[in-house]
Amino acid sequence: MIQVAIMGHGTVGSGVYAVFEMNAREISRAVGQPVEVKYVLDLRDFSSLPYADKFITDFSVIENDPEVTVVAEVMGGVGAAYEFTKRCLKAGKSVCTSNKELVATHGEELLALAKAHNVNYLFEASVGGGIPVIRPMMQCLAANRIDEICGILNGTTNYILSEMIHKGVSFEDALKQAQALGYAENDPTADIEGHDACRKICILSDLAFGDKIDPNEVSCQGISKITLKDVALADELGYVIKLIGRAKRAENGKIYAFVAPHLVAKSSPLAAVEEVFNGIMVTGNAVGEVMFYGQGAGKLATASAVVADMMDAIAHADKRRPVEWGDGSEKLLLPLDALESAWYVPGEAPEAIVDRKIDGAVITKPMTANALHEAVGEAAGAMRVL
Amino acid sequence: MIQVAIMGHGTVGSGVYAVFEMNAREISRAVGQPVEVKYVLDLRDFSSLPYADKFITDFSVIENDPEVTVVAEVMGGVGAAYEFTKRCLKAGKSVCTSNKELVATHGEELLALAKAHNVNYLFEASVGGGIPVIRPMMQCLAANRIDEICGILNGTTNYILSEMIHKGVSFEDALKQAQALGYAENDPTADIEGHDACRKICILSDLAFGDKIDPNEVSCQGISKITLKDVALADELGYVIKLIGRAKRAENGKIYAFVAPHLVAKSSPLAAVEEVFNGIMVTGNAVGEVMFYGQGAGKLATASAVVADMMDAIAHADKRRPVEWGDGSEKLLLPLDALESAWYVPGEAPEAIVDRKIDGAVITKPMTANALHEAVGEAAGAMRVL
Repeated sequence: MIQVAIMGHGTVGSGVYAVFEMNAREISRAVGQPVEVKYVLDLRDFSSLPYADKFITDFSVIENDPEVTVVAEVMGGVGAAYEFTKRCLKAGKSVCTSNKELVATHGEELLALAKAHNVNYLFEASVGGGIPVIRPMMQCLAANRIDEICGILNGTTNYILSEMIHKGVSFEDALKQAQALGYAENDPTADIEGHDACRKICILSDLAFGDKIDPNEVSCQGISKITLKDVALADELGYVIKLIGRAKRAENGKIYAFVAPHLVAKSSPLAAVEEVFNGIMVTGNAVGEVMFYGQGAGKLATASAVVADMMDAIAHADKRRPVEWGDGSEKLLLPLDALESAWYVPGEAPEAIVDRKIDGAVITKPMTANALHEAVGEAAGAMRVL
Repeated sequence: MIQVAIMGHGTVGSGVYAVFEMNAREISRAVGQPVEVKYVLDLRDFSSLPYADKFITDFSVIENDPEVTVVAEVMGGVGAAYEFTKRCLKAGKSVCTSNKELVATHGEELLALAKAHNVNYLFEASVGGGIPVIRPMMQCLAANRIDEICGILNGTTNYILSEMIHKGVSFEDALKQAQALGYAENDPTADIEGHDACRKICILSDLAFGDKIDPNEVSCQGISKITLKDVALADELGYVIKLIGRAKRAENGKIYAFVAPHLVAKSSPLAAVEEVFNGIMVTGNAVGEVMFYGQGAGKLATASAVVADMMDAIAHADKRRPVEWGDGSEKLLLPLDALESAWYVPGEAPEAIVDRKIDGAVITKPMTANALHEAVGEAAGAMRVL
């Protein structure tokens, strides 16, 4: 019997408990013995739950219990979650998390701490919820040089854009719908301004390129300025508008990383990623393009990825996975100005830079942002074409 | 320095060598030391290659060299490949392969042999070429009960269908194009009759359901009878025709497994899998639907998956991955007759079974194949709707 603990009983935390219950047989068979949740740490009152006796409010109970070797951190944030994760790792317990903010902000420190104490810090659920992406990228694509990562990493914004594209709902109304359906928070800023997608593309970049990419240094543009007119013009040009997190290797080994709405050709598999789903395209120099698709959020989906990491940590109790990245001192991030793209420009543009035009918009030839601004001025509403 | 061997220098084998060359730096960094290909086993004359000195024709050189701990079997077939794989495993060498026929036919025996000798037998490249699917399904979805696998598993047939759908090319002409482009063999039977897809869905079923599914017992229908008229009628109904390998858990824990052309709704992500690409959708009871997409074949793509397995075998030299399945004695396979589907029927059908109809075809209500035959007779050209 393996004993584990769950820190946090919100959406994902209660899902982690539920997955251990509903799939006890599958989990036990794969692990080789039953896995029991010994503690659930949360300050709130859950005394009416059938497993109320598992709840504790004092973190040190987990920290000091040698029977607990693997802990799920599903509290979120970079406060207590950061503190408790460090203390778990120092106490020789593996930690598995869905906390993208913590991984993007302090991942390199926590991985180093895990290494020093010969335990695992795993975070498959931090990107793409339940979609396998981190492990396949690091293991199955291990024989590749990763050249580009390009994904629809936020389900809330993809839902809003899908409503705008397919039902002609305005941004404001689609956001209200998303909130009513529980897809968006009361304060939707982190989603619609791209901060959530930014943390995820930073984590994938850290892994793929080996050095920390600081979310605070990454250009991040959301979807709040996209209009139904943009959506209609893009459609006429053969594209859909998607919020894309991108990291691209430059020829000098440096990288571009950013979040911005892009025009995506309707023939691209990313264009078929609708509603709250996520799709993450990874380009390797041998494998070409592969894409991982599924629910990027949701209680059971995300929880199942946390539980799979916990099972992996149990299996690797005596042999930690060698995942780590540098502290950012390589300064891999290039200014975005130098990245050439074709651009969508609402309105008109000088013939010299036009590749295609329709009434109301043009697609430019590939060019830098600076060249675009020289040619058409501020170019409000311009978007890169993927 | 780790030393490895490659058995077979065809398309995939030469790709394996090429990946070790082109990505030596990435591979060395991930493994922690350089990896050198010591031998390439092939009976043909490659004396003009820059690495001609690596070639050997006598398998026992590999078998008897204790320095070689990991071997790629990329010969194909179930003759010498089977024999050499067994001898490698018995000699304490891990084997990594793209040989779907061998895995589907003798996988359980080879995995048991690997277990007995505490080495790995890995075969990520046997399904989906370079697309990560086996490892993500087994590891990232480990906390799920797998309920369905449903995939476009053969690039040749998907290319032919894409040409029929988008360019109105007949089956015969599309097949000729595929042969001219090197996507199809001179004898295309294994692809177009679905045998290749059948081996792959059997391997995925073996893994997901834990007992051998014999390719010879799996119903397997190809695409050679699909007409441009079917394609046009499906289009009018809102579908595309795709060759689908499917395995579905029934309520009693048994499974349905089969290969057949299906009508796939245009809104499904599988409908967006075009040309020679593959897409494999896996449904878990916690994660919902996830899809893995990419090039399902191709020299470097497939080779990169073999090399990643070799890197994994090196990393797990002292701790084998616990992959195994039973010998088929659980008899999991259900007769297909009991599986209800909506059906596409060219022509007419009695009103009682019709769900939708257009001029020239109907979509039925969900029903078994037997019920369909009772209602419309032989129903030549009927296809299930996914």
